[in-house]
Amino acid sequence: MNIETVENKYPKRDYNVHIEFPEFTCVCPKTGLPDFATITIDYTPDKLLVELKSLKLYFVSYRNEGSFHETVINKILDDFVAACKPRKMKIVGEFNVRGGIRTTVSAEHSN
Amino acid sequence: MNIETVENKYPKRDYNVHIEFPEFTCVCPKTGLPDFATITIDYTPDKLLVELKSLKLYFVSYRNEGSFHETVINKILDDFVAACKPRKMKIVGEFNVRGGIRTTVSAEHSN
Amino acid sequence: MNIETVENKYPKRDYNVHIEFPEFTCVCPKTGLPDFATITIDYTPDKLLVELKSLKLYFVSYRNEGSFHETVINKILDDFVAACKPRKMKIVGEFNVRGGIRTTVSAEHSN
Amino acid sequence: MNIETVENKYPKRDYNVHIEFPEFTCVCPKTGLPDFATITIDYTPDKLLVELKSLKLYFVSYRNEGSFHETVINKILDDFVAACKPRKMKIVGEFNVRGGIRTTVSAEHSN
Amino acid sequence: MNIETVENKYPKRDYNVHIEFPEFTCVCPKTGLPDFATITIDYTPDKLLVELKSLKLYFVSYRNEGSFHETVINKILDDFVAACKPRKMKIVGEFNVRGGIRTTVSAEHSN
Amino acid sequence: MNIETVENKYPKRDYNVHIEFPEFTCVCPKTGLPDFATITIDYTPDKLLVELKSLKLYFVSYRNEGSFHETVINKILDDFVAACKPRKMKIVGEFNVRGGIRTTVSAEHSN
Amino acid sequence: MNIETVENKYPKRDYNVHIEFPEFTCVCPKTGLPDFATITIDYTPDKLLVELKSLKLYFVSYRNEGSFHETVINKILDDFVAACKPRKMKIVGEFNVRGGIRTTVSAEHSN
Amino acid sequence: MNIETVENKYPKRDYNVHIEFPEFTCVCPKTGLPDFATITIDYTPDKLLVELKSLKLYFVSYRNEGSFHETVINKILDDFVAACKPRKMKIVGEFNVRGGIRTTVSAEHSN
Amino acid sequence: MNIETVENKYPKRDYNVHIEFPEFTCVCPKTGLPDFATITIDYTPDKLLVELKSLKLYFVSYRNEGSFHETVINKILDDFVAACKPRKMKIVGEFNVRGGIRTTVSAEHSN
Amino acid sequence: MNIETVENKYPKRDYNVHIEFPEFTCVCPKTGLPDFATITIDYTPDKLLVELKSLKLYFVSYRNEGSFHETVINKILDDFVAACKPRKMKIVGEFNVRGGIRTTVSAEHSN
Repeated sequence: MNIETVENKYPKRDYNVHIEFPEFTCVCPKTGLPDFATITIDYTPDKLLVELKSLKLYFVSYRNEGSFHETVINKILDDFVAACKPRKMKIVGEFNVRGGIRTTVSAEHSN
Repeated sequence: MNIETVENKYPKRDYNVHIEFPEFTCVCPKTGLPDFATITIDYTPDKLLVELKSLKLYFVSYRNEGSFHETVINKILDDFVAACKPRKMKIVGEFNVRGGIRTTVSAEHSN
Repeated sequence: MNIETVENKYPKRDYNVHIEFPEFTCVCPKTGLPDFATITIDYTPDKLLVELKSLKLYFVSYRNEGSFHETVINKILDDFVAACKPRKMKIVGEFNVRGGIRTTVSAEHSN
Repeated sequence: MNIETVENKYPKRDYNVHIEFPEFTCVCPKTGLPDFATITIDYTPDKLLVELKSLKLYFVSYRNEGSFHETVINKILDDFVAACKPRKMKIVGEFNVRGGIRTTVSAEHSN
Repeated sequence: MNIETVENKYPKRDYNVHIEFPEFTCVCPKTGLPDFATITIDYTPDKLLVELKSLKLYFVSYRNEGSFHETVINKILDDFVAACKPRKMKIVGEFNVRGGIRTTVSAEHSN
Repeated sequence: MNIETVENKYPKRDYNVHIEFPEFTCVCPKTGLPDFATITIDYTPDKLLVELKSLKLYFVSYRNEGSFHETVINKILDDFVAACKPRKMKIVGEFNVRGGIRTTVSAEHSN
Repeated sequence: MNIETVENKYPKRDYNVHIEFPEFTCVCPKTGLPDFATITIDYTPDKLLVELKSLKLYFVSYRNEGSFHETVINKILDDFVAACKPRKMKIVGEFNVRGGIRTTVSAEHSN
Repeated sequence: MNIETVENKYPKRDYNVHIEFPEFTCVCPKTGLPDFATITIDYTPDKLLVELKSLKLYFVSYRNEGSFHETVINKILDDFVAACKPRKMKIVGEFNVRGGIRTTVSAEHSN
Repeated sequence: MNIETVENKYPKRDYNVHIEFPEFTCVCPKTGLPDFATITIDYTPDKLLVELKSLKLYFVSYRNEGSFHETVINKILDDFVAACKPRKMKIVGEFNVRGGIRTTVSAEHSN
Repeated sequence: MNIETVENKYPKRDYNVHIEFPEFTCVCPKTGLPDFATITIDYTPDKLLVELKSLKLYFVSYRNEGSFHETVINKILDDFVAACKPRKMKIVGEFNVRGGIRTTVSAEHSN
């Protein structure tokens, strides 16, 4: 599943795009049971904007994949950066409570 | 639709005017369906203040225009700066959920 | 996937068990895209209590099934009643926004 | 703009469908300026369910129509009842503040 | 200051109009200091609807009047009933804290 | 400390006066340490309204009195009824957490 | 661990005592891991009031006991009724999320 | 109307006094209709503290004055600074929604 | 009333202890009526920790003392610093609304 | 009870893992009564990630241990750092109200 892009019409200005996706779900590689998270992305576009419909389909592609919390957030960061080469980007994944523990993973990239 | 201005009576002081407009709506250029957003502006006036009634009518003029999220926020920033030449200005547009994704676009200008 | 049951130790008393499951997900039969809902169940047990771990697995079994909102809620009601034969039961499914519309389906059963 | 319907698969059971649409907008017939409201509908289907995509388009068709608050809510009630002939139905329209006053109009229909 | 009315286009249906006015202010007859309240009205119109702009001006006319909490709410109820002769009506006035005490006065009328 | 009263100008109408006092404090008769509560009163006046300033002073008079939760609420109810002879009255006292337990005592009177 | 009682000084009046204990914990009899709940009790005392300190110690005595949700709530109801013989009583136990499911058990007793 | 002052007993320490007044009201100089705002002040006193009762009366003196949002906030700042000569001060005025737009004006002074 | 202290077992680490006391009350020296506040303290201990039970009794000792807002907060700061000599400390007192005005006083100390 | 670790797959990137555990409980060493807290940890992993299931069991091991608030937080910090040697780490423990006082202890470690 590819993250598609469109042209940024205001490349001279440093501005921020903030994206929230509260319907992220993947599968725990240990138990096979589903995990749920809210993914939040902030990025400063350079020449390309991420096309939101393809981003949603990219997120949906994790639905039946087994993936640890720390891994999935770092992997989305890498894929997003590869797709649109933003000036900087931050990602946060807030996972639902498991065993009474709530986990949030945050990572950043900048050129 | 023009953004009108009035004289700033306290030009010697750097102060901030914060404006929230939760009733912004335009049209998605792809689907023709309406989009909704809350627009927030913070600016430090120089010699001119924005007249609020004309600002509302300016916002209303987007009602049947097709416009992408990133474009509309950058365009309002340009028009506002051209109208009242503020010392600095920030704009944030928080758009309603589409396809499970919520998007917020933020941009700034300073002299 | 079966809903399992255990013996109710206090069958002489009419009492209520309230269950919330905010992690329900199935697939839209039209678009193939995932839907999300919070399922809430209230029931007055007769001779049997629902075993919660098997109920979770029953909910998880909808993950890749295509199902309309009204259908899925009525079907869960039928399956739950068949499994534990409660004195009365109510189910509510609050589905996430789609196309700007939020839908909640509620149904009840009593003997 | 027509409200379309689909078959109700559980017509023997009295159950409730609750619909929220926070993006309703029409035009004030006096001032020509936009009004905004959240429309909430609760109905007990008989033989027909309302199809949600067509309901959204029906709501969107009010976008450039001039209509008083009390009139628009009663009219939507009449159109919805005509389309799917529910056993009972309630509608609530919560309109945004105008002149410091917030107005909510509620109406019901039953067979 | 008169409360003006307009024709109710749906007189055959019993429906409810809910009005909130959070900007009510009058003057304490003892101390001469201002009091503040949120006034909420619910009424079922008969042949007449209250015109909202005139209702606002009616509320504003209390601005410099001295009036006890219990009196002002009962008086607004009487004036509103005299103006539009509703089938039933309820009024609630929630006054701001004075001396550590918060007071709310509620009254109803029905034909 | 007496609760004073004033004439009710609208004795023909059954209406409700709701009073909140979040600053109630007395002393625990066992430990000598202070207790804190929010007292809420709802009453339908007959010929007399309670004068709010004297009510505040009446509440303040408990400041250094030792009194159990259940007793203090029943006593205020008796004193209030004796003072203004309301058609009906309800009192609620929500006491702050002690030992991890939060207690609320509610009592009613009607003629 | 006994629930102790004190004399009710206002036995002629039907009134309500509401008790919240957000720090209830016991042990899951299957896994040996701790469970957590907020216990809420409402009762109308007859001749006896429950003494709150002994009630807290009674709750604490469950700390290392293995007990199912439905059983623990029905047992507390039985013990509380045996101790103070209230005119009526309601208990609610809201247990923390386990496996993505939140469970609340409610039961009542009346003479 | 004068803002009165009292002696600061701790002039050697830089500390902050925060004042909120949610009951500010003046009149729109264009329409003659009332405006409402919450005024918030933070200041570091030097030799003088503002006396709060006189500050309230100073705020009340704006009740029937016509004044634009930006002007009223800058004028209160000037008057407050003249009265108590604080080491630094910040004022924020959050005005109620007019025409769907909410405005907040903020200004600062420091010696 | 003395604030007692205990030994800090981790004096090599700079860490923060945050204390909230929402039940502070003293008496207004002008009117003799009670004032209420939430006191919040943050401090970095050096060799001594404040013992919490004695701190509560210290707070309770203000119950019948007349004291201005600004004075009471600065005095608690001085007494606390004298007792445990922290590396740094901050105190905030949020007082309940009087005359429609809410006041918060904040002060800091560092070695 | 040991805190177990797993390999960090992204050691070249500085990123943050945030963990909330609202079900922490230990015993007051003075009174023998239980204390409750929410523990929050933020850490930047180096070569090792903490395994969450073992972390939960580590937290559960405090259940019947007597421990002061300041000590338990500093001890968890030391154990966590010893187990996974993070680049930096912060811990916050928010303890439930005791004697009307709420205490929060925060500490940090960095290499």
